[in-house]
Amino acid sequence: MTTQKLEQTPLPIKTPVFLNAAEAQIIRALRKSGHISRTKVAEMTGWSKAKTSQEVRVLVAKGYLLDEDEGISAGGRKPRLLRFNNQMGYVLGIDIGATSIDLALADVGGVILKRASEAADVRNPAEVVLGRCVELGMELLNAQGCSVDQVLGIGVGVPGPVDFSRGVLVAPPLMPDWENFPIRDFFMQTFTSAYVVVDNDVNIMALGERRYGDAINVDHLIYIKIGTGIGSGIISNGRIHRGSNGCAGDIGHICVDKQGPICRCGNRGCLEAMAAGPAITEKALLAANNGESPLLLHLMQNNHGVMTPELVSAACREGDEAALEIIRNSGQMIGDVLAGLVNFFNPSHIFVGGGISNFGNHLLVSIRRAVLRRSLPLATTHLMINFSRMGADAGVCGVVALALEYLFVDEEHPFLAV
Amino acid sequence: MTTQKLEQTPLPIKTPVFLNAAEAQIIRALRKSGHISRTKVAEMTGWSKAKTSQEVRVLVAKGYLLDEDEGISAGGRKPRLLRFNNQMGYVLGIDIGATSIDLALADVGGVILKRASEAADVRNPAEVVLGRCVELGMELLNAQGCSVDQVLGIGVGVPGPVDFSRGVLVAPPLMPDWENFPIRDFFMQTFTSAYVVVDNDVNIMALGERRYGDAINVDHLIYIKIGTGIGSGIISNGRIHRGSNGCAGDIGHICVDKQGPICRCGNRGCLEAMAAGPAITEKALLAANNGESPLLLHLMQNNHGVMTPELVSAACREGDEAALEIIRNSGQMIGDVLAGLVNFFNPSHIFVGGGISNFGNHLLVSIRRAVLRRSLPLATTHLMINFSRMGADAGVCGVVALALEYLFVDEEHPFLAV
Repeated sequence: MTTQKLEQTPLPIKTPVFLNAAEAQIIRALRKSGHISRTKVAEMTGWSKAKTSQEVRVLVAKGYLLDEDEGISAGGRKPRLLRFNNQMGYVLGIDIGATSIDLALADVGGVILKRASEAADVRNPAEVVLGRCVELGMELLNAQGCSVDQVLGIGVGVPGPVDFSRGVLVAPPLMPDWENFPIRDFFMQTFTSAYVVVDNDVNIMALGERRYGDAINVDHLIYIKIGTGIGSGIISNGRIHRGSNGCAGDIGHICVDKQGPICRCGNRGCLEAMAAGPAITEKALLAANNGESPLLLHLMQNNHGVMTPELVSAACREGDEAALEIIRNSGQMIGDVLAGLVNFFNPSHIFVGGGISNFGNHLLVSIRRAVLRRSLPLATTHLMINFSRMGADAGVCGVVALALEYLFVDEEHPFLAV
Repeated sequence: MTTQKLEQTPLPIKTPVFLNAAEAQIIRALRKSGHISRTKVAEMTGWSKAKTSQEVRVLVAKGYLLDEDEGISAGGRKPRLLRFNNQMGYVLGIDIGATSIDLALADVGGVILKRASEAADVRNPAEVVLGRCVELGMELLNAQGCSVDQVLGIGVGVPGPVDFSRGVLVAPPLMPDWENFPIRDFFMQTFTSAYVVVDNDVNIMALGERRYGDAINVDHLIYIKIGTGIGSGIISNGRIHRGSNGCAGDIGHICVDKQGPICRCGNRGCLEAMAAGPAITEKALLAANNGESPLLLHLMQNNHGVMTPELVSAACREGDEAALEIIRNSGQMIGDVLAGLVNFFNPSHIFVGGGISNFGNHLLVSIRRAVLRRSLPLATTHLMINFSRMGADAGVCGVVALALEYLFVDEEHPFLAV
């Protein structure tokens, strides 16, 4: 185990694949439809036939496009179609959770080709965990038969607050030693051709849901993760909303009850302190010990005397009224907070994920009920509130999506994805 | 007064000035800097010198650019600079308030050239109010010496909820008869060359603050308007966030107290019902009548026995403790709601506007205090909470900004402003 720190400043931001405006417009259209004709390119850009041919030739020469003979003729000469060249390179998604790492290798078109997962512990030093990520990444590359310099982009998700512009963790509660560790530089030492982007776990889940899940083409959504803490990822106008300091979505510390218990943040009655995993466990422990729920007591005794959210979930499945009440209560508090956010943000979809989402419909029904009761009709008529069906996949798909978002960049808007 | 209704469907969306991707990129850069050299255009686009010259010639020929001899030489031949051709046309901003209409004529570069204001009453039929707007608009054109077909864009602000995609009011409380009135079509009958955009009063104030006020280049902000009601305009990643149904920002009905008074929306304890103008008046009336504030009673008696928010404001200036307490209380409730929104949205700026903002620093201090107490440190360290210094100007500047936002449109993203 090395304790040597990497050079921290200046952070050399790896140049992504640069496109000019015209090229970006073509690639953008291709991303949507998968293929495009020269006629369509000319229509889109207003270019002459000659100019279109020339621009297309450049993109083919650069290896972005494939020129294929696959169009369906409308009577005349069979038209040639331009396709996105998925072989031009790869992206690597690295999702680092509290207890696991998940990797995916995808082509630049976003098709996931290879995956790897294993247990990990983020309380280990960053070099150890990230070093193992590099090894697993190399294994995926070898399995795919491609080389390190074909990796054009890497998306990394971490379980803590990220300063997005610098790509470092800021005061991460789970892994304090990782603070300011240059994650981006670490990966760029091996993957020298890659543009590396780092984001927090909830933002990548929102991205994963939008690119690979039930939120494809959804412009305004909130992804809420309920586990030990409560956080959210926000998409506005089709883009992640990170806010001014990159800490948008931190809804766990919105006040639910000014007279509530003191939260780890120092305030009283935060949503997280009242409705997340630890609060559920604590209430269940009380119900077990005060005779309210013999079932919870029994389950706890069979679990070496330790109460867990999973036991509450099991008791709910048995119809235990005390357990159900605990879950309904959490759902209502979460729903009350979401009701305000729905009025403010007017999303079309809310996705609920994270460990506590396994509690099933009792939780979801309570959340929905609270939102419908307090939000305005126009904002809720078409609002969908559902569990994320991707589960843990949202994270690993999200880091691939993150890498792709920043792969093709408009020169003038270095952080506006094509 | 005509009662004849205009054709409502299909709504013919007026084609804005269309640019291809390359042209849009040049115009975008020009908007920022005011001028650009051919060398910079070539750098930006990656084009050859010849191609750059050709593209620039097209834009000059189309009348978008002026080719001027103004660059400062770096030693060699004096470079020519390209400027945005502000003479290519005009935009008209029409801000319709509950009791007034404000118009501004600007060039396409956003310089406001002429203004007009007069009292109006939106309880009159839409044809009457909008007809008067057309007349005032024509007067501005005449004064400027330009013709109707030189108006390329019109931004309209209205005091009620707008279905932005259709450009119509939806259940507007102040003017129920305006519901679904085709505002866009009405203006397009006269201004046949113009692209017309309609939005609600708070969104345009946010836009006005961003283009002409203290929020220039601010990417994430909330503009909160406190008057008879409470609403907000949201900017995310530099663009207005309207949400899935166009009703984002409706924070007046976020719950402050589940046991609070019943709001006009039917729920209990909405922010608006507890902290806006009518609630302030009601509390002041109570303080006047129960002997708590002899000053408020005196002021009310001198005002024909009618209590108003303005009297509360006057009493505050005199240091009346009961009046101050009422205002502090409103500020705290507004601040409590904003605290949650700051955690969720992480804006860098909050602007406070609307009639009640005239209450001065007592209100602002209470809002700030509540936000700082409940929001997370990372989100508040650099957060600015201030009164909008533009006052009523935010609206009329905002409608000009709205028109400009949609004037130059990327063909592939018809609603993405350049």
